[in-house]
Amino acid sequence: MDRQALHDYTLTIIKEAGERIRKSFFETMYIETKSDANDLVTNIDKETEAFIVKKIHAYDESFRILGEEGMAEEEISSLEGVVWMVDPIDGTMNFVRQRRNFAISIAIYVDGVGQAGYIYDVVADELYFALKGQGAYMNGQRLSPLEALPLNEAIVGINAVWATPNPRVEHEGIIKLIHTLRGTRSLGSATLEIVAVATGRMDAYLSFRLSPWDIAAGIIIAQEVGAVSSTLDLNAVNLLNQDTFIVANPSIHKELVGDYITLK
Amino acid sequence: MDRQALHDYTLTIIKEAGERIRKSFFETMYIETKSDANDLVTNIDKETEAFIVKKIHAYDESFRILGEEGMAEEEISSLEGVVWMVDPIDGTMNFVRQRRNFAISIAIYVDGVGQAGYIYDVVADELYFALKGQGAYMNGQRLSPLEALPLNEAIVGINAVWATPNPRVEHEGIIKLIHTLRGTRSLGSATLEIVAVATGRMDAYLSFRLSPWDIAAGIIIAQEVGAVSSTLDLNAVNLLNQDTFIVANPSIHKELVGDYITLK
Repeated sequence: MDRQALHDYTLTIIKEAGERIRKSFFETMYIETKSDANDLVTNIDKETEAFIVKKIHAYDESFRILGEEGMAEEEISSLEGVVWMVDPIDGTMNFVRQRRNFAISIAIYVDGVGQAGYIYDVVADELYFALKGQGAYMNGQRLSPLEALPLNEAIVGINAVWATPNPRVEHEGIIKLIHTLRGTRSLGSATLEIVAVATGRMDAYLSFRLSPWDIAAGIIIAQEVGAVSSTLDLNAVNLLNQDTFIVANPSIHKELVGDYITLK
Repeated sequence: MDRQALHDYTLTIIKEAGERIRKSFFETMYIETKSDANDLVTNIDKETEAFIVKKIHAYDESFRILGEEGMAEEEISSLEGVVWMVDPIDGTMNFVRQRRNFAISIAIYVDGVGQAGYIYDVVADELYFALKGQGAYMNGQRLSPLEALPLNEAIVGINAVWATPNPRVEHEGIIKLIHTLRGTRSLGSATLEIVAVATGRMDAYLSFRLSPWDIAAGIIIAQEVGAVSSTLDLNAVNLLNQDTFIVANPSIHKELVGDYITLK
């Protein structure tokens, strides 16, 4: 596998996919719901994933692909060999309602180790990527390593729903956390909240139900600036199933999870 | 007062102020705290307000100006005559930490009635404005009137802290609201959340402690697309003191406030 060639190829795929999404703004969009009324998918999600899958397989038919919309028609039950993780539109609600604040996410794993991660904020035209061990970049500019800070100066991405009674986490701990932090934000796109941590715009992002394609690229980018990713019971991130997730500045990761998060 | 000339002049002021802020990214920033550790002000906030005040007074020395940083050195206790409301950097925390997601806000009121509102998202280079009765615009493109929708399809801007025990609102109602809505967002800039409502990216934005300069321009812009603004006890917005605030799609305004908001 010629890694540089594959990297260049992936950059062209993600940019072309973004250009197709921008053009779709002038076409009629068809919206369906998935697991519940708030879980949307559009024809553009599906067409974009199909486009990306076709391009990946044009490079090498043997590459396995785990995609949010299942366009690769594969079951992925292990991370052996080369596995691509694709989210054609992360933040579909923002895509539908705002026509901004969504991103394409593509990651390449080899035997379970992230080798390359790409996140493209299509409307802002901001392309983030990282190659393992070679730093993270935004539009060609290298991202700086994160600087330590205390938890009471941190800005954390968290959805307000986790501060309310819910089946996944003791919300009293989240309330205590919110009162400790300098502030919270919620953007409605996991990938863009992960790159917000990687660029130091936020200091952590956590969620209690994310899928592998939501985090696969982001954690590779985040790792290159020193951010730490884990589940919220401090295990390695789960790249085969939906699970809890946090990415954080290393100076606050353990304190945030240990002192404020009690999973149910 | 030649309104068109004043409008053209204000556009040049706000764009030049934005350019000065962009240039400040390359200079050293000095940060102080105001009322509490989370209430920041920088030399750039002060310099930007001083610049705007000087420009307004160069046009007409008699204009009264209410500015967040008090650079006009005036007490404003009534809205008689011409009153300008200026927030040089709304979202100072975002300005300091993110170098994005903040805005300049300028409004012109005559005898308490909003005549012109300007909000400039400096880094995105998106300039929103409205002249009373003449529609609202973003970078020259007219914004569409808002379309009705049910509350359970609404996206609402609200800070997670209001879903936790706090001195201003019964948080149980906020929890019920969060579970009713399609989703929440939190951007960390009141002006940008108000223009998100005006552009239909969000359907309401509410807060329990905003100052006149946070909302003065936004409510003029929002009104031109049909959005409704009020305090959270359904009185007219307060342009002389800090107060509660909501701006909303008219189809959900009364239901949201009436069924979910109980002020303390």
